[in-house]
Amino acid sequence: MIDISVPDIVVGRLPLYLRSLQKMSQEGQQVTSSQELGEVLGISAAQIRKDLSQFGEFGKQGTGYNIEYLVEQLQKILNVDRVWDVVVVGAGDIGSALARYQGFANRGFRVTMVFDSDPNKIGKQEGSHIIQDSALIVDVIKKAGVKIAMIAVPASQAQKVANQLIEAGVKSLLNYAPTSISVPKDTHLQHIDPAIHLQHMTYYLD
Amino acid sequence: MIDISVPDIVVGRLPLYLRSLQKMSQEGQQVTSSQELGEVLGISAAQIRKDLSQFGEFGKQGTGYNIEYLVEQLQKILNVDRVWDVVVVGAGDIGSALARYQGFANRGFRVTMVFDSDPNKIGKQEGSHIIQDSALIVDVIKKAGVKIAMIAVPASQAQKVANQLIEAGVKSLLNYAPTSISVPKDTHLQHIDPAIHLQHMTYYLD
Repeated sequence: MIDISVPDIVVGRLPLYLRSLQKMSQEGQQVTSSQELGEVLGISAAQIRKDLSQFGEFGKQGTGYNIEYLVEQLQKILNVDRVWDVVVVGAGDIGSALARYQGFANRGFRVTMVFDSDPNKIGKQEGSHIIQDSALIVDVIKKAGVKIAMIAVPASQAQKVANQLIEAGVKSLLNYAPTSISVPKDTHLQHIDPAIHLQHMTYYLD
Repeated sequence: MIDISVPDIVVGRLPLYLRSLQKMSQEGQQVTSSQELGEVLGISAAQIRKDLSQFGEFGKQGTGYNIEYLVEQLQKILNVDRVWDVVVVGAGDIGSALARYQGFANRGFRVTMVFDSDPNKIGKQEGSHIIQDSALIVDVIKKAGVKIAMIAVPASQAQKVANQLIEAGVKSLLNYAPTSISVPKDTHLQHIDPAIHLQHMTYYLD
């Protein structure tokens, strides 16, 4: 079902569709339409239909989408019909918030390890995790086979940590450090930097 | 200089260019090229030249870009040649991390107020801020004239808080709650949801 040729920008919208559909489902709704979904998300109904049509036929004309079925299909397409282990590197404010974050439940992820290089933090409890020594990243993560990591260290350390994670076999990095990092072609990288988002919006402010 | 017709996807790349240029500048570098910038960012040199050309002539053929000048120009274009006041609503893990976040310095923003609805938190110190009562959002923010807010409340409260912020005159919302929210056409909205970014990447994982 997965077509390697689907543009990345389309792939990037699927999690938004899934989140909205899961919310509708939790609220007891059973059927929706591309119109309704579009209004919730600020995306045109035509765009949603076109995006979904790249992966199959999910609705019948006139009757809309069965939400439960579409949720299941999107979870399969996005490979979140399972639970992925995720490591957090950096137990500062942001790393701690991520280690305790409740928003991953039912969305395919659970944080299983937290690392920091600060001797005062190593061995301490963070949420339900014991903070481990960053010096052990390569060994511990390789052994555990974890493929996904969130980087929440200072900008100056981000590239070094990314290199260690990649050496450990991690293939998906979510970088919270406010800096660019370089990764090999087979590693997926996304950034979360609030200043980037805010600057995008101040462009439009007077 | 600002052209209203520039596509939003181009605008969204400018903060990435600015961040990389500021890093180069801090490291003492004076000149760069679209090739070098492209390698750092994983964006083609042609795309960078095309994006920048929408706003003017910033480099001479063969000599590259003067970093300090390009930083100044991008700051003007993005309206971050000033410092914007930003409010944080929600003093949980994420809101607290945002209130103390060091990554806004030199990037055009400072957090000036933090709100929460929990009586146990109101009046307490969070970083350099006293947590204020969310019931006062409309009055306090209207009086202060703040235009930018970050929402870090539970998903169930996000729409209500967004409505209050909009009533208070806020025009740019950065939403950390893991839910869609609806805003009027003249309000800018961006989302930060780590599960969305992770699901985008698990699409490509086996």
